[in-house]
Amino acid sequence: MDNNHDVVTELPELDCWELLRQEEFGRLAFHLVNEVHIVPINYVVHRGRLVFRTAEGSKLLGITMNQDVAFEIDRYDDERAMSVVVRGTARELQGEEADDAEHLQLRPWVPTAKFSIVEIKPVEVTGRLFRLDLPWKHMRPTG
Amino acid sequence: MDNNHDVVTELPELDCWELLRQEEFGRLAFHLVNEVHIVPINYVVHRGRLVFRTAEGSKLLGITMNQDVAFEIDRYDDERAMSVVVRGTARELQGEEADDAEHLQLRPWVPTAKFSIVEIKPVEVTGRLFRLDLPWKHMRPTG
Repeated sequence: MDNNHDVVTELPELDCWELLRQEEFGRLAFHLVNEVHIVPINYVVHRGRLVFRTAEGSKLLGITMNQDVAFEIDRYDDERAMSVVVRGTARELQGEEADDAEHLQLRPWVPTAKFSIVEIKPVEVTGRLFRLDLPWKHMRPTG
Repeated sequence: MDNNHDVVTELPELDCWELLRQEEFGRLAFHLVNEVHIVPINYVVHRGRLVFRTAEGSKLLGITMNQDVAFEIDRYDDERAMSVVVRGTARELQGEEADDAEHLQLRPWVPTAKFSIVEIKPVEVTGRLFRLDLPWKHMRPTG
């Protein structure tokens, strides 16, 4: 039961990127002055970085004051869970860079005005696969 | 299209707690020295706080050095997404407090050794409901 090797596996970085490309919804953790904050975002993978749109003040303010961010995606079913974490730096794209990003498939789920485009440049990409042990799931109603 | 009132709704705190009680999997964002980190965790709601187990060094080290954390759960389908964020302080439970928590339904999904019990005391609990606009979903194969 204490053998981590059996139940937790580190994912190769290529697999992490494949998972990042398959998803479009994740969570961004960022500094806001002395606090850590977390928000859900829609993103797209483009040229080895993550790109997202935002109109919200706190995210933009936070990353302008401190570029250090962490980003996570995950998925799970009854048998296994996967989590990919990107640590990196975020910055708002301006001018031509922002214009280029306008052509990306940035498909915000919520059609509110989202004016700014932000990129996350990865410093470290890690992923883990968990083999789950959910005995109580059998006790839940199915279908 | 720019009317946020139609597509993003703030959830009352009671609804946030109901959602927190229904889930058992979320993401913890914490400080590690000058960096922000994010990890998936299994948790349980108990007496107005969140409790989880951990054996990992970086989470424990991080919250020992800086208690400020943020925690997020979310769920979504084709029509709407919900996200609840808890900002608060984390600390490792010791002695009797840890013994008490042993009786909680702390059901780790992964049966690795998890020695420490941590509580997150909420400072702020917020939630948002997003009405989604996913036109491309119709283009995906179903069933």
